[in-house]
Amino acid sequence: MKDSYNIGLIRVVTFPQGDLLNLHGKIIERYYPMLKVTSRCIPDQPYGIHDEETELLAVPKIIELAKGWKDIDALVISCAGDPAVKELRQILDIPVIGAGESTALLALRYGQVFGVLGITKEIPNAYTRILGNNIVGTCDVPGIVSTIDLMAKTGKEKVINKALELKSMGAEVISLACTGMATIGVAKDIEDACGIPVIDPVIAEGLITYYECIKK
Amino acid sequence: MKDSYNIGLIRVVTFPQGDLLNLHGKIIERYYPMLKVTSRCIPDQPYGIHDEETELLAVPKIIELAKGWKDIDALVISCAGDPAVKELRQILDIPVIGAGESTALLALRYGQVFGVLGITKEIPNAYTRILGNNIVGTCDVPGIVSTIDLMAKTGKEKVINKALELKSMGAEVISLACTGMATIGVAKDIEDACGIPVIDPVIAEGLITYYECIKK
Repeated sequence: MKDSYNIGLIRVVTFPQGDLLNLHGKIIERYYPMLKVTSRCIPDQPYGIHDEETELLAVPKIIELAKGWKDIDALVISCAGDPAVKELRQILDIPVIGAGESTALLALRYGQVFGVLGITKEIPNAYTRILGNNIVGTCDVPGIVSTIDLMAKTGKEKVINKALELKSMGAEVISLACTGMATIGVAKDIEDACGIPVIDPVIAEGLITYYECIKK
Repeated sequence: MKDSYNIGLIRVVTFPQGDLLNLHGKIIERYYPMLKVTSRCIPDQPYGIHDEETELLAVPKIIELAKGWKDIDALVISCAGDPAVKELRQILDIPVIGAGESTALLALRYGQVFGVLGITKEIPNAYTRILGNNIVGTCDVPGIVSTIDLMAKTGKEKVINKALELKSMGAEVISLACTGMATIGVAKDIEDACGIPVIDPVIAEGLITYYECIKK
């Protein structure tokens, strides 16, 4: 075990250098001080990934970014759709962590009926695979199309209303399915409003990254 | 978030004060330096929990030990059967972590077909609940009845042979289902012998405990 680990983190939204680009990395560094995170983002996708088309567009860009990245102990794809995660595990000899599968598996700790709350009509693969038939409701939030809408003034409110709906359908835990939810820090607000546990995808991907690093 | 957390850990095998009693706690402190672990064990069960009868015997003792424990941020029941975990979550107002559910959910990260390797004929509940129908083979190891047998000279060898059998049946990952496997540190040996990931229940319970502490 080392004293600290260098982590590469890929944002699937195009941001200029600065706070927004580094925000997920900063959250991870706060909760897991042993991890030192460098963030990079894919080019030309200012609205990120929010449907199949934008995911297909992003995958080769993620692979390109990842392939040239030297001197990191692990790579995080900070997106709940886990784009390119499977492909990169075949290519790279370091652990590759996806936000989606990390979040979904942590949700299993907190209940048996799951709300999966993201911004896509389709529930991301990892959530379906891991939480199976025990998912209630739909994944998308009315009025939210991309991660940029989440950052708008009414973004949080819309997400909280959707969470309350999922709770009313029986959800015992909310598994967030868009890392943009972490960007706006809505997990705690949902917990306060709904009184059920909420899994934040950036804290979750950080946890699994930490595990991957220490277990080597 | 605090700089460090006080963790109580209950061993379900009766040990005198000393290295063996503290061994799981020391593993957790090594991998998660923010956690400071104090270990206690239940009385009068020198062979631990290894079937339904010994589990039933242990549950009220665990509850008794836990109820009187002050000044801890979280409580770990260091046993893959998660005995008394459900009951204690109703009683205590701190997080209660079981080795079984922690190990089973981490296994989901590493494959879709699971070997569950412990010392009981019945697969512990959390593994069945979380890994469902994708478990191959049986859980027990020929020649091993209790955690004490694991510590015998041939303990490791028997466990490794069983792991190889589970791999030959299709297991893509081995989810250890007895914390005595952590006591003998067999996870790495199995990985070397089988070439597939192995989830160590003490490292797993430590990870989930860490998560429980930081997310508060």
